Amino acid sequence: MAKKATGGGLRERKKQATRTALAEAAVRLAAEHGAEGVTVEAISEAAGVSPRTFFNYFDTRDDAFAMIDAGIGERVRQAVLDAPAELPPLTALRDALAAELAGIESRHELWDLWAEVLHASPHLLVRSMGAHLADELALARAVTQRLRGGEEVPEDEPPGLYPRLVAAVAATAVRVSVAHWSAQGTGAAGRSVPFAEIFRETFAQLSAGLPAPGPGTD
Amino acid sequence: MAKKATGGGLRERKKQATRTALAEAAVRLAAEHGAEGVTVEAISEAAGVSPRTFFNYFDTRDDAFAMIDAGIGERVRQAVLDAPAELPPLTALRDALAAELAGIESRHELWDLWAEVLHASPHLLVRSMGAHLADELALARAVTQRLRGGEEVPEDEPPGLYPRLVAAVAATAVRVSVAHWSAQGTGAAGRSVPFAEIFRETFAQLSAGLPAPGPGTD
Repeated sequence: MAKKATGGGLRERKKQATRTALAEAAVRLAAEHGAEGVTVEAISEAAGVSPRTFFNYFDTRDDAFAMIDAGIGERVRQAVLDAPAELPPLTALRDALAAELAGIESRHELWDLWAEVLHASPHLLVRSMGAHLADELALARAVTQRLRGGEEVPEDEPPGLYPRLVAAVAATAVRVSVAHWSAQGTGAAGRSVPFAEIFRETFAQLSAGLPAPGPGTD
Repeated sequence: MAKKATGGGLRERKKQATRTALAEAAVRLAAEHGAEGVTVEAISEAAGVSPRTFFNYFDTRDDAFAMIDAGIGERVRQAVLDAPAELPPLTALRDALAAELAGIESRHELWDLWAEVLHASPHLLVRSMGAHLADELALARAVTQRLRGGEEVPEDEPPGLYPRLVAAVAATAVRVSVAHWSAQGTGAAGRSVPFAEIFRETFAQLSAGLPAPGPGTD
């Protein structure tokens, strides 16, 4: 599996930056005014683009709320395909996700806002869940492709149990790591354990088969 | 950890049967008329109880849609506490969940209906997600109690990383097993692999640390 250039070009990165700016603007406006009160015009203006450009990225206003960073899924899939052949799939996934989560401390406030917006507008939450489930299946497909030495997987082939499980468990590991990190609170001393450490420990427990921890370390 | 009788009494089982009958009636009526058109009176009548009895189980009509069988969580937690001390937590969880999923072939049609009802009424889906997340945290608490030899966990103590992870991964394993089993389709020959076999394989992969499967077996 040689390093491929797909998805990494300057043009592609600019497109992803615009898409992310639009999603962030949508969330910040919705947090302030409620999602129903936010127009495509207002989102576009806040992101510094025209409404016409908005519709190059999203079919409807509501689509802007489905994912806070739609580029993550594509980058993780590519990284899983590009990772050294000797890495187990779970390790390739861990490294790909760790790279995306490296800036979590600075983005967490935005993610919390986004979660609030979705919970306040359940139809947006349903849309977001659908987008994340589709992303999970696309990741399972990338794992399948990796297991086959890079050979393309037919579009209509449903993922096998292992690729589906490893993709879903990785998503769960991200959710649990973030929740555990957040639950530490933000006292005067800040969060006591850095996110990267909790994330590594989570995947170490998964790779070990989730054995019971030693006495006094639950 | 000796076998305890809590949760297994006849009175408790009757209560759970009534609660489940009400939830099932609510889902079947909602699938036919839409959730908004279903009254507490209609649900109660279909389940053969009075509206007053309905309100012994649910605070509002919408609460009847949050869980299709609210007894499952309580039974799984109790089984995790009662399982032989030598079983690893993941195995205790697997056995507890397997017992609950034993009748899945006969209940799957109802679960599909329920999923349709929730997706058609996003505010019910949000309520259901909240109930399931609370159940997952309660399960993490039961795992913590098991790891401490049965010692009660203080109400305000947040779960540690391991109990939270093992509870969330077990829930993910159930979701993936059901999805993989359903995706086999229902041709003239029926589903080719029984659910119990897929479920066992899923937990075997988790216990082994999700290693890559051998060539040609993804």
